[in-house]
Amino acid sequence: MTVTSEMKSESVTLHPLGTASAPVPELLCIFGTGDLGRSLGLRLLQSGYRVVYGSRRPDSCGPLPEGAQVMSHAAAAAQSASLIFICVHREHYDFLQTLAPHLKGKVLVDLSNNLKKGVYPEANAAYLQRLVPGAAVVKGLNTLSAWALQNGLLAGKQVYLCGNSAEAKQAVAEMATKLGVTVLDKGSLSAARELEDFPLRLFQEWRLSLGVAFGLIAIFFLYLLIRDVIYAYVEHGEDVSYRIMISLANKVFPIVSLIMLSLCYLPGVIAGILQLYRGTKYRRFPDWLDRWMLCRKQMGLVSLGLAFLHAIYTLIDPSRYSFKYNLISTAVDEVKENETTPFDNTQAWRKDSYYALGILGFFLYVLLGLTSLPSVGGALSWREFTFVQTKLGYLTLLICTAHCYLYGWNKFLHVSTYKWYTPPGYMLCLIVPSVVLVLKVLLLLPCVDRTLTRIRQGWERTPSGEELGMNKATNF
Amino acid sequence: MTVTSEMKSESVTLHPLGTASAPVPELLCIFGTGDLGRSLGLRLLQSGYRVVYGSRRPDSCGPLPEGAQVMSHAAAAAQSASLIFICVHREHYDFLQTLAPHLKGKVLVDLSNNLKKGVYPEANAAYLQRLVPGAAVVKGLNTLSAWALQNGLLAGKQVYLCGNSAEAKQAVAEMATKLGVTVLDKGSLSAARELEDFPLRLFQEWRLSLGVAFGLIAIFFLYLLIRDVIYAYVEHGEDVSYRIMISLANKVFPIVSLIMLSLCYLPGVIAGILQLYRGTKYRRFPDWLDRWMLCRKQMGLVSLGLAFLHAIYTLIDPSRYSFKYNLISTAVDEVKENETTPFDNTQAWRKDSYYALGILGFFLYVLLGLTSLPSVGGALSWREFTFVQTKLGYLTLLICTAHCYLYGWNKFLHVSTYKWYTPPGYMLCLIVPSVVLVLKVLLLLPCVDRTLTRIRQGWERTPSGEELGMNKATNF
Amino acid sequence: MTVTSEMKSESVTLHPLGTASAPVPELLCIFGTGDLGRSLGLRLLQSGYRVVYGSRRPDSCGPLPEGAQVMSHAAAAAQSASLIFICVHREHYDFLQTLAPHLKGKVLVDLSNNLKKGVYPEANAAYLQRLVPGAAVVKGLNTLSAWALQNGLLAGKQVYLCGNSAEAKQAVAEMATKLGVTVLDKGSLSAARELEDFPLRLFQEWRLSLGVAFGLIAIFFLYLLIRDVIYAYVEHGEDVSYRIMISLANKVFPIVSLIMLSLCYLPGVIAGILQLYRGTKYRRFPDWLDRWMLCRKQMGLVSLGLAFLHAIYTLIDPSRYSFKYNLISTAVDEVKENETTPFDNTQAWRKDSYYALGILGFFLYVLLGLTSLPSVGGALSWREFTFVQTKLGYLTLLICTAHCYLYGWNKFLHVSTYKWYTPPGYMLCLIVPSVVLVLKVLLLLPCVDRTLTRIRQGWERTPSGEELGMNKATNF
Repeated sequence: MTVTSEMKSESVTLHPLGTASAPVPELLCIFGTGDLGRSLGLRLLQSGYRVVYGSRRPDSCGPLPEGAQVMSHAAAAAQSASLIFICVHREHYDFLQTLAPHLKGKVLVDLSNNLKKGVYPEANAAYLQRLVPGAAVVKGLNTLSAWALQNGLLAGKQVYLCGNSAEAKQAVAEMATKLGVTVLDKGSLSAARELEDFPLRLFQEWRLSLGVAFGLIAIFFLYLLIRDVIYAYVEHGEDVSYRIMISLANKVFPIVSLIMLSLCYLPGVIAGILQLYRGTKYRRFPDWLDRWMLCRKQMGLVSLGLAFLHAIYTLIDPSRYSFKYNLISTAVDEVKENETTPFDNTQAWRKDSYYALGILGFFLYVLLGLTSLPSVGGALSWREFTFVQTKLGYLTLLICTAHCYLYGWNKFLHVSTYKWYTPPGYMLCLIVPSVVLVLKVLLLLPCVDRTLTRIRQGWERTPSGEELGMNKATNF
Repeated sequence: MTVTSEMKSESVTLHPLGTASAPVPELLCIFGTGDLGRSLGLRLLQSGYRVVYGSRRPDSCGPLPEGAQVMSHAAAAAQSASLIFICVHREHYDFLQTLAPHLKGKVLVDLSNNLKKGVYPEANAAYLQRLVPGAAVVKGLNTLSAWALQNGLLAGKQVYLCGNSAEAKQAVAEMATKLGVTVLDKGSLSAARELEDFPLRLFQEWRLSLGVAFGLIAIFFLYLLIRDVIYAYVEHGEDVSYRIMISLANKVFPIVSLIMLSLCYLPGVIAGILQLYRGTKYRRFPDWLDRWMLCRKQMGLVSLGLAFLHAIYTLIDPSRYSFKYNLISTAVDEVKENETTPFDNTQAWRKDSYYALGILGFFLYVLLGLTSLPSVGGALSWREFTFVQTKLGYLTLLICTAHCYLYGWNKFLHVSTYKWYTPPGYMLCLIVPSVVLVLKVLLLLPCVDRTLTRIRQGWERTPSGEELGMNKATNF
Repeated sequence: MTVTSEMKSESVTLHPLGTASAPVPELLCIFGTGDLGRSLGLRLLQSGYRVVYGSRRPDSCGPLPEGAQVMSHAAAAAQSASLIFICVHREHYDFLQTLAPHLKGKVLVDLSNNLKKGVYPEANAAYLQRLVPGAAVVKGLNTLSAWALQNGLLAGKQVYLCGNSAEAKQAVAEMATKLGVTVLDKGSLSAARELEDFPLRLFQEWRLSLGVAFGLIAIFFLYLLIRDVIYAYVEHGEDVSYRIMISLANKVFPIVSLIMLSLCYLPGVIAGILQLYRGTKYRRFPDWLDRWMLCRKQMGLVSLGLAFLHAIYTLIDPSRYSFKYNLISTAVDEVKENETTPFDNTQAWRKDSYYALGILGFFLYVLLGLTSLPSVGGALSWREFTFVQTKLGYLTLLICTAHCYLYGWNKFLHVSTYKWYTPPGYMLCLIVPSVVLVLKVLLLLPCVDRTLTRIRQGWERTPSGEELGMNKATNF
């Protein structure tokens, strides 16, 4: 099997729009025919540019978007394109040194990313500038994925640029704006390293929430393992280790879910109290509060995920071996002891209410999650969004907390609940949501609410401060 | 803790793109550094404008978007910006009166909203115009939420403008178009009140559907409460009130869900019959039919929500106290009476079919719901969307109706079903879907379908009418 | 009820933006006031055009978008609009022949679609061109649905144009770009037929996946019908046909789901092996592999749908008649034989682990499905998307495969498992995922992985080939 056997003779070209009379669209050049190069070319063609590819092997470089031309690197560089996109891995930059004379005065856009941080001493873009000193290197667009480019998911995306030539940056920014992204200038080429580290961040804004979730899961898992499994083994010699897989997990997940849901609403309450205490909204919140408020959405979604797991774990319960075993042995015992347990109406009420609240809470949870989908949330008006995220959110928290209280019921009265003098998990998980709800109720008291609303509309308790601001304003 | 301790000395500025050679971008001014002001500024900066903030307290106004400048109100007004966005609450408009001389000839865009309708005698924008008579006030953009601005979710959104100066409106419209929104002129400033009431509407298009749903839920809840709980108490002295939480809810939700699903398809069927009867599609439908057809999507989604609740309520059933109690007491009774009930194949078939249909129906329901997500529905072709919303929709209705018929089975034969001479809920809920399905089958009869298709392609039964239209057309 | 009774005297007009000073926006004409015409007009108005409708019956043509004018066809054609959109069914084109003199030199955009393929001998656009030889007919935009136009879901959509006049195409392309869609030229009007067949394609990219799914479902259904139902009838005379509805379906769906999930990852593994074998990534994959890789997303979503069905089928199990019957008869038998089965810890562990793995697998599955939503996937960075689709995907496959192995447990040791010498379904479905996982592990071995990573970054094993490419490049 040789290379030539796969060579395609037809060079793919397509009528550019309106070649007859319209002005010829600008030509751009792309070095590299990998996934990124192909997707970028497709998007550029669709934005009305002409595109020429430079390829190490123009005859066998795989399928390119319709309408693009492909030639050798040198031939492509010799074309009239003033912008050249470098969609090649840094390892293969050396060939650019050979082409340096052809690239003089051109703008090279370095889109490259590395696989890991800190592999090379200098940024890819700096290295490129060193190889081709005559060209103006602009680092940028490297946060766009081939997938987003292919699927036209660029609208509203923010990309960064840096480079030493303002003209070059301006040219790239104009092109990027046509693609539908918004551009932010990050200064000179020395910022290239920072830009190259951007795409290597993995779920940065999720880290805090996921960290908190995993931490809480680990803590409660250990706590409940001791209380539920080890206690039974040590005190009664029973081996109930099988409970780890479902019973234990189905205690840990809802506990952490409820705590995280209340952690979504705690910072808002704290902020309210802080504003009340300070008597103004024009003072910065402490950094930790700012950071906390920024990851509320992620906290809520992690909490929803855990609630989803809790729901399925609960629903699977009757299919379990232990469920069936217990049912059968209860029936057998009743027959043997020849006594029928009467129907306990209170139990029926309590358990049904407990389940009904859980289901309603989960339903509201899912609604909250749906409105956090970008395409759904974007369709809501300001008041609708506020309504969903606060009113509906607090209702969810209230229902889920009530669900948990009903689960506990009167267990707290029995000494047997406090194995080894420890409180059960559900009690621990009720602390934070109860505090949040109580504080929220306090903030909703008419007198407090009125003050807070005024503060949030710009009123300040210290008139001197306001005077100061207004004086300054009128002094100019 | 004093204010000064939080003052930041660095005034945040960022290299505007291409300051060297490119033309300096237009400067816009924003009064107010709250959520809305910040988000608007961010979006304006990303759209290529320069932004200066006017703040009561320029030294301690919290984090502003990178690249924006901040000064006192007066200093900001003295800048070259011809457009000033008023992102301040109406309560604080008075300072603008002091600034009136600086604002002469400028365009003031009033983005303010009130918290409730009818608090003030005049619209905020009219009040603003009265305070600063020398400026051209334009009301508008007030439907954009800070959240949508921050997340770049503006594409395709429609905003309204009104104002007395056509030039001022034109300038704002051009700016708004650059932000990606589409602009509709609502006339002079007297329309400001209407525009200010827009964002206070809460789920306007959902109201009818939610109203119908809550109405039906209330009616069926009462009806079933009487039949299931009160009847048992009065006639047999049994207290089965615990059934309210789950058993009753799990009857009401599916009943209302099925009725609302069929109400989605009823207006389409009525429209078809009307078109057949009139012999043309060029006559307006009655208003009630138009309004009904416009809220079909919302009706379907409410119905899906209820179906979701029904599904979880059903799945939780085996975990309930009463389920376990009944199982055990059946087993105990069988032992005591020493007779084994044989396996009833018909029962097994019926119940399994009943569940299987329910599951398939719910699955199709969820598919329908997914395609109503803006980002999913937008990816479908015209024919695909029609296929999903009609063919798949009617299949869902058919399966869910069959599910309900199977639930009833032969209960309608037994006198005991008609407690106090009332039919059970499931019978009542079968009426509408059965009617819709029968009418749809009639419309699908080849002869009827052919005529309807021709009408929908523009054919008319009364040739005189068509002549009229065509004559008019050729007379010109 | 006469037509005139519905005539509205007011001709709907709205102040165009900035009529006072700004340049008058371009006028476009739309023939036809159906759904498509109305939605197109709305979008054009919002993009800043003026719109005039030509209607057979301008007085009773139903609600049109605010700001549009409506007149007879001839009057509309006589306006200054150079572009006329034909939103009329082909059956009604004849009136255009009468208007031909008015249409001379104008650009007619044919947006029409047919209801079926091959109804007419020539394309609608070709027929239109024949009727109005003096106009420049452009076929295109016909893939846009009224729904997408109405809801502003055009961003990033790709539309096709064809026509004999380059100027006409250019004019339409410019207009289309303003609407936010991207335009591709398909050549002369002879391509019109192809364009008219586009919207008639129904879930083209889903066909392969759905075909594979239905094929596998049919095969496994028959296979399991023979093993589970017919075998019991023939060998033991038992009628267990009721199992078809749920037990059988709940075996077929997970089997096909797991196979399809592994079929998502098999082509990636094959591609890796092929690249390793060839020592380069610059050779095209065979066509079947390319096509397979393109439908991985659809395969995954079909697989997720089946997994969803499997989940609900499993959860409904304890509500079934047979579940209750078996529980009761086990209890009764135990009492009669007067022996208590001891609690089997291994069984409890095995079954709980089996369920827990299934739940976790389903959870990850749903996460994968969520990231395939356009609006969610578009918000992910390149590395995040790769992480989710590969790492998380393989983890899902691993967990689901383990779930299936645990289901089988030690059944493979018992002769009774092999009814009529056939292996049970779960064994058959384990083949493909096991192969994929083993191959993937081999590809992840450090030495293999290193080579493959280098190849994917552009390295080639045959230096001669690389020389060739670079030489070509530097020869120019």
